[in-house]
Amino acid sequence: MLAVEKHMFKSLFGGLVLVFALAAAQATSGQVADDRPQFDGSKLVRPVNYREWVFLGAGLGMTYSENAGSGPQSFTNVFVNPSAHRAFLKNGTWPDGTTLILEIRASASEGSINKGGHYQTKVVGMEAHVKDARLPGGWAFFNLAGPGGLVAGAEPLAPAQASRCVECHQEHGAVDTTFVQFYPTLIDVARRAGTFTDDAAPARR
Amino acid sequence: MLAVEKHMFKSLFGGLVLVFALAAAQATSGQVADDRPQFDGSKLVRPVNYREWVFLGAGLGMTYSENAGSGPQSFTNVFVNPSAHRAFLKNGTWPDGTTLILEIRASASEGSINKGGHYQTKVVGMEAHVKDARLPGGWAFFNLAGPGGLVAGAEPLAPAQASRCVECHQEHGAVDTTFVQFYPTLIDVARRAGTFTDDAAPARR
Repeated sequence: MLAVEKHMFKSLFGGLVLVFALAAAQATSGQVADDRPQFDGSKLVRPVNYREWVFLGAGLGMTYSENAGSGPQSFTNVFVNPSAHRAFLKNGTWPDGTTLILEIRASASEGSINKGGHYQTKVVGMEAHVKDARLPGGWAFFNLAGPGGLVAGAEPLAPAQASRCVECHQEHGAVDTTFVQFYPTLIDVARRAGTFTDDAAPARR
Repeated sequence: MLAVEKHMFKSLFGGLVLVFALAAAQATSGQVADDRPQFDGSKLVRPVNYREWVFLGAGLGMTYSENAGSGPQSFTNVFVNPSAHRAFLKNGTWPDGTTLILEIRASASEGSINKGGHYQTKVVGMEAHVKDARLPGGWAFFNLAGPGGLVAGAEPLAPAQASRCVECHQEHGAVDTTFVQFYPTLIDVARRAGTFTDDAAPARR
């Protein structure tokens, strides 16, 4: 082989290896890297694809107050980014880069063939709970809806607004200030990992 | 370069290209290829990772009968395999290889800090609705739970058992015999694609 041919062959080889390595890296890391919280300055960018994330649980008309009003009940769906979910399954707690989305939907009862009970309709609210080392305290809450509907991004709730959320999550969250006691697929994972705070567990009924 | 060196180099080169190509192919096709229905003979293998699939909606105590009992209400969560979801977003209908999982969970009301409403607890039932060209008629229903809990796999429901499901889904399913009218993120996708049967839509409330 001539020197020039050797060089060409090495370049071709190196180039191909690079192409395949990049393709493999992009393909394998795509899921992991893209779902971390994105900030625009200090605003959390509302994730647009959270409905393709992992569903953790749904509630209907859940309330933490004895004096809840008697208005129409809403559904609350909780989703988490896939990379954080994979880390939780492994370690029983949330990694840096966790985003929990609380999607609030109106409920309807009679429609189409349904004669009773409740099903989900339009989005009426959205909140995020984010764990990111860039946030003071490591976690923050964000309100991703305003009077005009969903917003493109939001600042963390100010301390005065957030204090009720923070205190309640710190006091009652089963794992790392989150309400894992209401996410049935994660309860045993956290128990096995020893990260579950038992006094926050739902009463057995 | 000696002939033997050339041969080794070519083998090494070919081997490396093969390794990278396989890695890239596996990484890119992993999501798409692995979520199609798997059969063991004529039995559908119960998918074990459906909780990482796409959540379509939840109901509580939904009933299609005027004479529903007054027993405890269950939650019904519906999940679909990601490749079928991607195809639906593109075409407004389900591709061959669609699996819809109906996960039935018990509900609880008072537990931990919750004072009202309902949240989800243990799995009490599971059904699948599968579109696969290998099935007679293209679609079939499967009961993935038995008296002892979830089963590893199940035959399609026999015609006598399935006829009530089939008739109701054919008559009232908004898209391709499925109840898209209860999956709020898909309704507009199907309307835009012209695949939504409007007379099955929920009443506006």
